[in-house]
Amino acid sequence: MPEDKQKLWREVLSPLYWDEAGKVVMLDQRLLPTREVWQSYTTTEEVVEAIREMVIRGAPAIGCAAAMAVALGARSLPDEPAAFREGFVRICALVAGARPTAVNLKWAVGRQRRVLEQTIGGGVAAARAALEESALAIWHEDIGFCRAIGKVGAELIPDGARVLTHCNAGALATGGYGTALGVIRGAVESGKRVRVYADETRPFLQGARLTAWELARSGIDVTVIPDNTAGALMQRGEIDCVVVGSDRIARNGDVANKIGTYTVAVLARQHKLPFYVAAPRSTIDLAMPDGKGIPIEERPAREVTHVGETQLVPEGVKVRNIAFDVTPRELVTAIVTEVGIARPPSESTIQRLFDTTLV
Amino acid sequence: MPEDKQKLWREVLSPLYWDEAGKVVMLDQRLLPTREVWQSYTTTEEVVEAIREMVIRGAPAIGCAAAMAVALGARSLPDEPAAFREGFVRICALVAGARPTAVNLKWAVGRQRRVLEQTIGGGVAAARAALEESALAIWHEDIGFCRAIGKVGAELIPDGARVLTHCNAGALATGGYGTALGVIRGAVESGKRVRVYADETRPFLQGARLTAWELARSGIDVTVIPDNTAGALMQRGEIDCVVVGSDRIARNGDVANKIGTYTVAVLARQHKLPFYVAAPRSTIDLAMPDGKGIPIEERPAREVTHVGETQLVPEGVKVRNIAFDVTPRELVTAIVTEVGIARPPSESTIQRLFDTTLV
Repeated sequence: MPEDKQKLWREVLSPLYWDEAGKVVMLDQRLLPTREVWQSYTTTEEVVEAIREMVIRGAPAIGCAAAMAVALGARSLPDEPAAFREGFVRICALVAGARPTAVNLKWAVGRQRRVLEQTIGGGVAAARAALEESALAIWHEDIGFCRAIGKVGAELIPDGARVLTHCNAGALATGGYGTALGVIRGAVESGKRVRVYADETRPFLQGARLTAWELARSGIDVTVIPDNTAGALMQRGEIDCVVVGSDRIARNGDVANKIGTYTVAVLARQHKLPFYVAAPRSTIDLAMPDGKGIPIEERPAREVTHVGETQLVPEGVKVRNIAFDVTPRELVTAIVTEVGIARPPSESTIQRLFDTTLV
Repeated sequence: MPEDKQKLWREVLSPLYWDEAGKVVMLDQRLLPTREVWQSYTTTEEVVEAIREMVIRGAPAIGCAAAMAVALGARSLPDEPAAFREGFVRICALVAGARPTAVNLKWAVGRQRRVLEQTIGGGVAAARAALEESALAIWHEDIGFCRAIGKVGAELIPDGARVLTHCNAGALATGGYGTALGVIRGAVESGKRVRVYADETRPFLQGARLTAWELARSGIDVTVIPDNTAGALMQRGEIDCVVVGSDRIARNGDVANKIGTYTVAVLARQHKLPFYVAAPRSTIDLAMPDGKGIPIEERPAREVTHVGETQLVPEGVKVRNIAFDVTPRELVTAIVTEVGIARPPSESTIQRLFDTTLV
């Protein structure tokens, strides 16, 4: 890893970077927490496959990977402008379709499309350079957004809080630093004592494998629990608030996130605990009126039936592997973004986030 | 396996039996769903260890195993009456302490203690024979109770119902036939079409491994879901009711059961779905005023940190492995027993179960 990338890795645990030689390099998150392996990808198709296979996951992170995948693909498209444009349309469609639920993927591809329109007049070489520059900008901006989310959200976390989080909305799910875990990092950096409970998050175990790994690495107190244990801890008074990320937020404030988020939100309401969602504005889909229309990915049965080589479910028994659910805005106390907080989430509080540019 | 035991296995999937040669034989439930291995135990200590290690689990089943463990131990105690009695007290304490939450363990040991008191006057040999006979009676009665629970509970399940269950309160958790799954078997036997969703039930995966296995074996439609998926299915209108078992029911109707049961009950209430608990009266602890006093077992971290040889949680990260939770009676629609239904659960409706002897 080049020196400047190492620095970013140490500082904010960026799970991917752009190699100027024409590679997208990503930490293979399927192998954590036991192995730290960086994989290089040299074609759009390879990056799309890696996104699909969850080498990288988390809405903002796959947004960054998507932007890089488009820039990468543009390198090997023909120099002839019409053919370049035709190929560009193809790779954009390919990348945008890698996974259905996270809107950041479409958002990043849309931004690259606009970059092309603005620069192709200057020739294919200029467009290629602009697409690379834009991919880097999207990545670096995302880190900046996460730091801002951390600063904004830190105020919501009381000193001494025991915070429940679900899945991994951490550095590994973003350009670096994290959204939900960014809020926790922000609280810790502001001097607060925070203890985190991480839902293990079946079936892919992002909480056990990734959230626990990155928090432990950052010296933040973390305890892993099975997903079905959060309710009992709330009942015992051992949780003070919940912070999660999001894969897509509808215009009205409904929140799509990792399967199980809705259950945590219902439990939080039952115990009168605040339930916070942390996400950059690129996660908000203003074209989506409410959560009912958000496409929900169902993933392969094997993620549920096996862990490693161990078979958990008898041969031939059906399983459902619904990857996300939708939490209605009524159960969301506030949405924390890089420019401020929508509290309570509604069309108007969310619209206001786009009318401002600063906190 | 002897012919008569094979018959019981085929009919009601009894997960254990008493071998007259002086052995307790149990299906090793840790190896399901991929391997069907019957283990023989020849000392009380071995059976206690097997209960602790979850070779057998489920409150009624460990009640049966406990009764057999006492009868088994009585075989090798000294013939001299005072020494026999002293040894008997020791093995009873050992068995009763195998696991803390399920009251059936204590109930079965208490019943064996009374058998001893009633028969020791006739000599040690007579007491030994009576203890064996009583162990068999407890086992066979439990199967009968389960069948009765199935008959009583079947009426609660509508034709065409999609029923959610948590953990395994099935044949494998009882003398045979099952409590919660007994209700489902009863509904199916009465001609109703039933589809079951089985929470996989982390960390020990009783739902994925055991409930799925025994329902598939009995030809009942079953689909396994991660624990965090039940909420999303309820939200989509794909669940009609919930049926679970119990490890201990307090006098007021509070229900201790496998961790995650409380969460399912909260979700059922949120979606206005009936939440039923099925258990024999031996699960009701009249000496326990409410759920707050029920001891809740915490089990070894490794059950959470590993599945087979696969490590899920980073080295050194803390975990909580709380094995049970308590669902307050307010969230329980009805408790189904072998003699009738307590609906809604309360001191008086539960007391009434003990005043009757027949449905």
